[in-house]
Amino acid sequence: MNTAEMIGSHPQGTKADRQTLASCIELCFRCSKTCTMCADACLAENNPGKMARCIRTNLDCADVCIATGRMVSRLTEPDAQVLHAQVQACIAACRVCAAECEEHASKMEHCRICAQACRDCEAACEQALGAVGV
Amino acid sequence: MNTAEMIGSHPQGTKADRQTLASCIELCFRCSKTCTMCADACLAENNPGKMARCIRTNLDCADVCIATGRMVSRLTEPDAQVLHAQVQACIAACRVCAAECEEHASKMEHCRICAQACRDCEAACEQALGAVGV
Amino acid sequence: MNTAEMIGSHPQGTKADRQTLASCIELCFRCSKTCTMCADACLAENNPGKMARCIRTNLDCADVCIATGRMVSRLTEPDAQVLHAQVQACIAACRVCAAECEEHASKMEHCRICAQACRDCEAACEQALGAVGV
Amino acid sequence: MNTAEMIGSHPQGTKADRQTLASCIELCFRCSKTCTMCADACLAENNPGKMARCIRTNLDCADVCIATGRMVSRLTEPDAQVLHAQVQACIAACRVCAAECEEHASKMEHCRICAQACRDCEAACEQALGAVGV
Repeated sequence: MNTAEMIGSHPQGTKADRQTLASCIELCFRCSKTCTMCADACLAENNPGKMARCIRTNLDCADVCIATGRMVSRLTEPDAQVLHAQVQACIAACRVCAAECEEHASKMEHCRICAQACRDCEAACEQALGAVGV
Repeated sequence: MNTAEMIGSHPQGTKADRQTLASCIELCFRCSKTCTMCADACLAENNPGKMARCIRTNLDCADVCIATGRMVSRLTEPDAQVLHAQVQACIAACRVCAAECEEHASKMEHCRICAQACRDCEAACEQALGAVGV
Repeated sequence: MNTAEMIGSHPQGTKADRQTLASCIELCFRCSKTCTMCADACLAENNPGKMARCIRTNLDCADVCIATGRMVSRLTEPDAQVLHAQVQACIAACRVCAAECEEHASKMEHCRICAQACRDCEAACEQALGAVGV
Repeated sequence: MNTAEMIGSHPQGTKADRQTLASCIELCFRCSKTCTMCADACLAENNPGKMARCIRTNLDCADVCIATGRMVSRLTEPDAQVLHAQVQACIAACRVCAAECEEHASKMEHCRICAQACRDCEAACEQALGAVGV
């Protein structure tokens, strides 16, 4: 992935740890992609009515993660309070979506993979919260 | 606008006040559109380097508002904690973007209009926070 | 709505007709919102498995419309070829989603409203294609 | 990355080549991320006014790529015509953004990396166009 290189090439730079930021950005984008795919896979199951809550948390998490990934990837003139609030919202969305997917993980491989992507993103966001400037 | 009608046609319905939700959704989408346009107008100013902070807050606010507007517009199986965190992030983004645009409002009409859109969205999100289910 | 005012306040301006652009932008954002809501309402129906195709076309149309609405709302240094291709994709997404929603319109009010939003957006995009600069 | 696994776990499956689809999805998301970062880095350059066209093509490409990546990642009830039009729009956006970034690549490392991400995404979209079902 090219995220750390992109951070390194920014004219202003950042006081935050480069690898911590890069992980947060990459895992936000990956989680958004995986949740989009999981919502779609749930919809194709035999009885998607039983997956309604999972589809909804997937769609929410996909939207929150892409907004968060974009915000964290911007280094120019950051606002710590806005970043903090959005990363907190991302942690909440990932936590709820992971818990929901974990309930289906033993029967549905897409939910097992998606739960892992959400947990990875949640952890990376927690670490980014601790980094300088976020 | 058709937002209140769409809420009224939802099979599950919602315990939240229909007009409060509709206003929040519509103003999130409008603010996202206006911030996208304000970032672009700032970029076309004679000295966009002086508008870098405004462009960045506009881009963030555009992304946060669209994610929030989408989440609030979903009524199926809502999660109060996730919604609450995202609406809080939206309030923070709107507040910071409004304050930044207000500094340029006397000289730049696009910033004046955008500041108003951010303040309207901020107020609608505050009201939605008080509504049942958000 | 404030879209025409925002276009009028842009430092570079545009050779395209202001009202044609404003309608295209507003209807893209409205269609994105309405399709997001219709996908969610379909998911809450008694038998969402029968609505799988409708949900999928709604989700696609919501994503295409927001990308198109953002692009058309940028007036700085436009590229006619990219805009043209994206507006064409938006017309295709709206047409397919409208046709799908129309099949359910007599039984589901959310599909009736959504079909209209898609047809309105499709028509506004067709008109924008004819405008100078798009 | 987990994209090929997610495709493999989809209940309906796809007639398209799994690796071709997975590459297209992953490179769309990566290009969206990289273009978002390049727009932000251009904005932080000494004279961002000279980068206005680059910033604009980056923002467009970021929006088109995320919409395209989401659509291609949905396998349930695909519509070939809509997918085709959106992938064509993505190819156009990547081509124009790559050409613009290539002009700055010798002086700005972020533009060099971004041009490569756009070219990779353009090529993956061309290959996806040839795959069954897209």
